[in-house]
Amino acid sequence: MRLRIDLNCDLGESYGSFKVGTDAKIMPFITSANVACGLHAGDPLTMAQTVGLAKKHKVAVGAHPGFPDLVGFGRREMQLTFEEAENYTLYQISALNGFAKAAGLSLQHVKPHGALYNMAAKDEKLSRAIVVAVQKLSDELIVFAPPRSVLAKMASKAGLRLAHEVFADRAYNPDGSLVSRGQKDAIILRPEEVVQRAVMMVTEGTVQASNGKVLSLGTVHTMCVHGDTPNAVKLAKALRKGLTKAGIKVEPAGNFI
Amino acid sequence: MRLRIDLNCDLGESYGSFKVGTDAKIMPFITSANVACGLHAGDPLTMAQTVGLAKKHKVAVGAHPGFPDLVGFGRREMQLTFEEAENYTLYQISALNGFAKAAGLSLQHVKPHGALYNMAAKDEKLSRAIVVAVQKLSDELIVFAPPRSVLAKMASKAGLRLAHEVFADRAYNPDGSLVSRGQKDAIILRPEEVVQRAVMMVTEGTVQASNGKVLSLGTVHTMCVHGDTPNAVKLAKALRKGLTKAGIKVEPAGNFI
Amino acid sequence: MRLRIDLNCDLGESYGSFKVGTDAKIMPFITSANVACGLHAGDPLTMAQTVGLAKKHKVAVGAHPGFPDLVGFGRREMQLTFEEAENYTLYQISALNGFAKAAGLSLQHVKPHGALYNMAAKDEKLSRAIVVAVQKLSDELIVFAPPRSVLAKMASKAGLRLAHEVFADRAYNPDGSLVSRGQKDAIILRPEEVVQRAVMMVTEGTVQASNGKVLSLGTVHTMCVHGDTPNAVKLAKALRKGLTKAGIKVEPAGNFI
Amino acid sequence: MRLRIDLNCDLGESYGSFKVGTDAKIMPFITSANVACGLHAGDPLTMAQTVGLAKKHKVAVGAHPGFPDLVGFGRREMQLTFEEAENYTLYQISALNGFAKAAGLSLQHVKPHGALYNMAAKDEKLSRAIVVAVQKLSDELIVFAPPRSVLAKMASKAGLRLAHEVFADRAYNPDGSLVSRGQKDAIILRPEEVVQRAVMMVTEGTVQASNGKVLSLGTVHTMCVHGDTPNAVKLAKALRKGLTKAGIKVEPAGNFI
Repeated sequence: MRLRIDLNCDLGESYGSFKVGTDAKIMPFITSANVACGLHAGDPLTMAQTVGLAKKHKVAVGAHPGFPDLVGFGRREMQLTFEEAENYTLYQISALNGFAKAAGLSLQHVKPHGALYNMAAKDEKLSRAIVVAVQKLSDELIVFAPPRSVLAKMASKAGLRLAHEVFADRAYNPDGSLVSRGQKDAIILRPEEVVQRAVMMVTEGTVQASNGKVLSLGTVHTMCVHGDTPNAVKLAKALRKGLTKAGIKVEPAGNFI
Repeated sequence: MRLRIDLNCDLGESYGSFKVGTDAKIMPFITSANVACGLHAGDPLTMAQTVGLAKKHKVAVGAHPGFPDLVGFGRREMQLTFEEAENYTLYQISALNGFAKAAGLSLQHVKPHGALYNMAAKDEKLSRAIVVAVQKLSDELIVFAPPRSVLAKMASKAGLRLAHEVFADRAYNPDGSLVSRGQKDAIILRPEEVVQRAVMMVTEGTVQASNGKVLSLGTVHTMCVHGDTPNAVKLAKALRKGLTKAGIKVEPAGNFI
Repeated sequence: MRLRIDLNCDLGESYGSFKVGTDAKIMPFITSANVACGLHAGDPLTMAQTVGLAKKHKVAVGAHPGFPDLVGFGRREMQLTFEEAENYTLYQISALNGFAKAAGLSLQHVKPHGALYNMAAKDEKLSRAIVVAVQKLSDELIVFAPPRSVLAKMASKAGLRLAHEVFADRAYNPDGSLVSRGQKDAIILRPEEVVQRAVMMVTEGTVQASNGKVLSLGTVHTMCVHGDTPNAVKLAKALRKGLTKAGIKVEPAGNFI
Repeated sequence: MRLRIDLNCDLGESYGSFKVGTDAKIMPFITSANVACGLHAGDPLTMAQTVGLAKKHKVAVGAHPGFPDLVGFGRREMQLTFEEAENYTLYQISALNGFAKAAGLSLQHVKPHGALYNMAAKDEKLSRAIVVAVQKLSDELIVFAPPRSVLAKMASKAGLRLAHEVFADRAYNPDGSLVSRGQKDAIILRPEEVVQRAVMMVTEGTVQASNGKVLSLGTVHTMCVHGDTPNAVKLAKALRKGLTKAGIKVEPAGNFI
């Protein structure tokens, strides 16, 4: 069977006049767009435009819900109750769903953003809240989660479609978590190295951790491409080309999950 | 044919710990709930609870989109572009739609809030933006608008379902607009008088304007009950009782439009 | 020397049309007002009105800075950097300072709100950030902090004026922290018991903890009166009367610190 | 007497992770910084950094208050009451004042932002609200306003210090107002032409309007340099150089008003 991978990117993170990211430039190289839904970034007009851009490039659309922390861009830990987490998630997915519907599309997936993603990877209550929100809306939606994370387990247990997400340009700790951005060597900059890691992740299901040890990731379904780094577009292009050259089909996760 | 009227009320206008309104007490007497969607009032948790409460009382649920002005409660005029107005409206209806879906319900209607409602009543561009947003989501949704308003005309022209809304406890100017809240005698306080006006509105399609002249309203479909006045619950109860006693069936607009 | 105590209350927590609290009713019985500054509650108009009301009742005015979490009312833990915490605090104190100045008053104190208060009580970095913000603005400002808390220590170490704050209507754990609101018996409801505890706190510097043990609080300077409970006004009145009757002078902390 | 002009620029308009503008690059060429205060743009951390940067470059600091419309960047008209406008303005100036104080500086001026500036130029009530807010805080603060505008008149009438502001890179209508950005030729792009107009504005107090007519501006005190256009830095540099070369001293308005 031919190997397949989805390339996803966080997009639609502008907010009104605050324009950020390189959405139009990176869209041609990815297969899934994680669209911000208004609480940590993204406003209704940006959401409409991002969904339109994704449609034009035949990129699958997913919700990228985050904490209600605009000034912190959803990157700061917040302690929410189960009900808050569930309903904030449901709100955001639903809002984006309307824009998808208006464009004649269906949402493919849900990928929590920033601190919500990182906390849910380890926190059962928060993961359940996200899973419950997804289930209440549709059992077609794919949850994007790190391999072996609590979120992946809870999504799987609930019978939801699940995509294991990896980061080819981020260093991994020996326990499978990402090396914090603040630390040295957290980000892998050389495109050739990122591509090599990406191919290894898909073909072998492994990654070399920061201590040199080879780490098993299991089956890998989607790979995150950062859209806000200086060489983001170049890297996305290199990744798509390198993966394709290695015989891996790059397509939306919804095609093979 | 038996006369029918819908009683609607703006609900779900709390915001996190800021609790306002008398939702649980007024719900038993109304037939349609206009639920705030997070921009001028309402947070995801409140939206979920309000939809749940409406379901329990078999009250039809509709979106109550407003301007993105939380501190002004959506009551201040704002100048939006067509695209902003369209997409802010689409965002809000969609977000609420998710909560309705999660509760096993469908949205019945859309009633713009506050300054958005008042401006759309006169402004063609703003009305079209609202109408386009509704159309993109569903042609089942009923638009609530004042009789003879620009919004009513635009909704009708677009082929959308339309409910003429009246206010039994508000004084009317001779031109059919409401007397501004700031003015003397803008609000009719005596329940008997409100009930009498309500019955006249439904049975005759008329109201006595502030200058004494009888004003034709045409067919009236839904009547707004305020939820934030001191005697709101009492008035809602009196209205429901008085209308029923006059042989008018009180039921959701979706049943007869 | 005569015993003295300050009675403080969190006020100005309305937000635009979202009216909460009983500010006008409770103001006559307190001596210090902690005024919300716009991030977790309070808007500029409410701030102006609250400062005006405090002036009228000769109540000392202080800033009540909180996390930038309006929908969560500043009651949810957030992870901020030192610079964020310092500058969010500086922003809020400064904003209120303008309203005080416009009314011909000087700010007396700073009392962090909700989760910021609770986290700072234990967290050295957060306490230092608050202390630095206060120092940059004025070395006259009094910091309100729980006795023996990290915040009290950091304020004291920095040479700032410090008021130990206690809660007569809250149960204390044996370690001196408050019993969480979620738990049974966290709130003491009977006014006589609250007054008795208050008098004991001021005269003896002790409180009976939830396990019956007598806990030393050291010198107590200010006592929090809740403004958002059903019997808030009644309790404030009873406290003022009971303390006065016990020979304790009730006056602003700035008079005796 | 030697001619003098102030070069001002809107700065500190980032919001948390939403980074906009070229503050560090443009600061060396200007003499007054209009710093956003958190309602339409700017967050506390950005405010602190912007004031620090201004201090480093010996640039005078002023408040740049705007409408509470973050997603609209304060560029959309909003209808506020007098009390709202006064207190929103007072809040924003005060907040920035704290950062100035913490840096050992005093605020030099107040320049309303975007729609607030444009509306106040024509609206007496709004202008009075701004003027009252300024007066309540300090009679040292200089108000920046268009020549002959209602805001200029109200500030002058109140006895406040006043700086007439002009825009060398914007086309003027025959009535002295700016040609709307949406229109053709609203922005003058060629640096030589902008410099030539700037020199004319300062030396002659005139500008050539869009219809070719020479328009009298009266005495001109401060000139706005845009910080958010592609060639902003280049233009600022050219302006400073060109004005200096023409024998005009470029310095903060506070030095000569």
